[in-house]
Amino acid sequence: MTYIQTDTYRIRSAELDANGRLSVPALMNMMQESANRNALDYSIGIADLAQHSFGWMLMRLRISLYQYPLYGQSIRITTYPTAVDKYFIYRDFNIMTEDGTQLADASSTWLTFSMERRTMVPLPEFIRQITLPTNINPQLKLLPKPDFLPPDGEPAKSIDVGWFDIDQNQHTNNVAYVQWLLETVNDTTLQMKQLSELDVFFRTESHWHDRLQIRSRPESSESWLHGIRHATTGKDVLLARSRWRGSF
Amino acid sequence: MTYIQTDTYRIRSAELDANGRLSVPALMNMMQESANRNALDYSIGIADLAQHSFGWMLMRLRISLYQYPLYGQSIRITTYPTAVDKYFIYRDFNIMTEDGTQLADASSTWLTFSMERRTMVPLPEFIRQITLPTNINPQLKLLPKPDFLPPDGEPAKSIDVGWFDIDQNQHTNNVAYVQWLLETVNDTTLQMKQLSELDVFFRTESHWHDRLQIRSRPESSESWLHGIRHATTGKDVLLARSRWRGSF
Repeated sequence: MTYIQTDTYRIRSAELDANGRLSVPALMNMMQESANRNALDYSIGIADLAQHSFGWMLMRLRISLYQYPLYGQSIRITTYPTAVDKYFIYRDFNIMTEDGTQLADASSTWLTFSMERRTMVPLPEFIRQITLPTNINPQLKLLPKPDFLPPDGEPAKSIDVGWFDIDQNQHTNNVAYVQWLLETVNDTTLQMKQLSELDVFFRTESHWHDRLQIRSRPESSESWLHGIRHATTGKDVLLARSRWRGSF
Repeated sequence: MTYIQTDTYRIRSAELDANGRLSVPALMNMMQESANRNALDYSIGIADLAQHSFGWMLMRLRISLYQYPLYGQSIRITTYPTAVDKYFIYRDFNIMTEDGTQLADASSTWLTFSMERRTMVPLPEFIRQITLPTNINPQLKLLPKPDFLPPDGEPAKSIDVGWFDIDQNQHTNNVAYVQWLLETVNDTTLQMKQLSELDVFFRTESHWHDRLQIRSRPESSESWLHGIRHATTGKDVLLARSRWRGSF
């Protein structure tokens, strides 16, 4: 069986940013929810993997944002796996208004880790053998490595991972990271511009009470580079690039 | 016309805490959404008030929590105004499973402030004259003052209000405060207990980049007192009491 997941979400007030548009962390939460439901249909959900002592890890996520919906509007998220190879499974997302106007799209790369060894492992056979949907137009596979270095120097902010930042696997959730890194661009960008693209490379997990350092620096007039690092070990937790366009 | 708002929300993975139960901040976001929709029906929504240069301010919210739903379950939130007097309007909430099992209930007290004078004003006439539902069983009106003092001493945490913590009125949103104060109880409470009651008194607004100090101290074996204060002015932003019960 092949499964394509489609969900409709009506934008709630808590999902808006201070400019009254759907916030990117809120959109990512919806995308994660639809991905979850699709994985459940394929019997490769978090609980299915946990039974075999495996866990999912998002390795890369790239989102392009074209238009932002407002309060009360409904958006339709479609997601499905597009390819499976030895180590990685690829998943695309399409985000549209109910009448079919494109709002955003995204592609992502996932790997499995062994809970015992805490390291990446080849995708287990029950994941490799899923049947992919055929009537789709997949995005290009994302490369595993960024073409940029993380910013260095004084961190813009230090964060202690809080109780509400961690998920049921006791890892910091991906959306919390994105919220922290977006908040460290300058005020004018947040107030006057729209995020048009976000490309995130996840490197290491982090946990409750970990202290993380967030670094952000402008790369050009319309893009920023971001890095999140463990304060004590110096390990990279993630690297990211954000692109912004003038909106007002 | 009278309006009673009822909405069904299916619990998403991002709405769970690390124990896999609906998180209280996520529940508060849903309650806020249903309250919003009810206010829109009554033509006393945020935009209706803004037209007259008024704003809503939540003064007190008390929630009692009996059972926590899990991933994928649906909850039904019902909310309506219960009373209006010179300064305050009262709103109740009922949170149930789809088959009618009580999960939580809440009552709340709201006031209006003048955007120009930044102070509380008597409720404008168009709010005072709304028709209340009659077939309801309202909770007791909450008193405006707490019967406890905020904790003093070294703050458990200092927070800089971030971009995603503020709402369209450029005020810190109520749910952000609650998340911060709950995170400062001790680890065992978060991991091993369930919040059974939360009673919050909101005092002053705060804004983007404000530094806030969060203080929490145990009041008894099952309750904590909390205070959030502006770091620079020393003004109380809120006071709260939380009650917890053993759950495992």
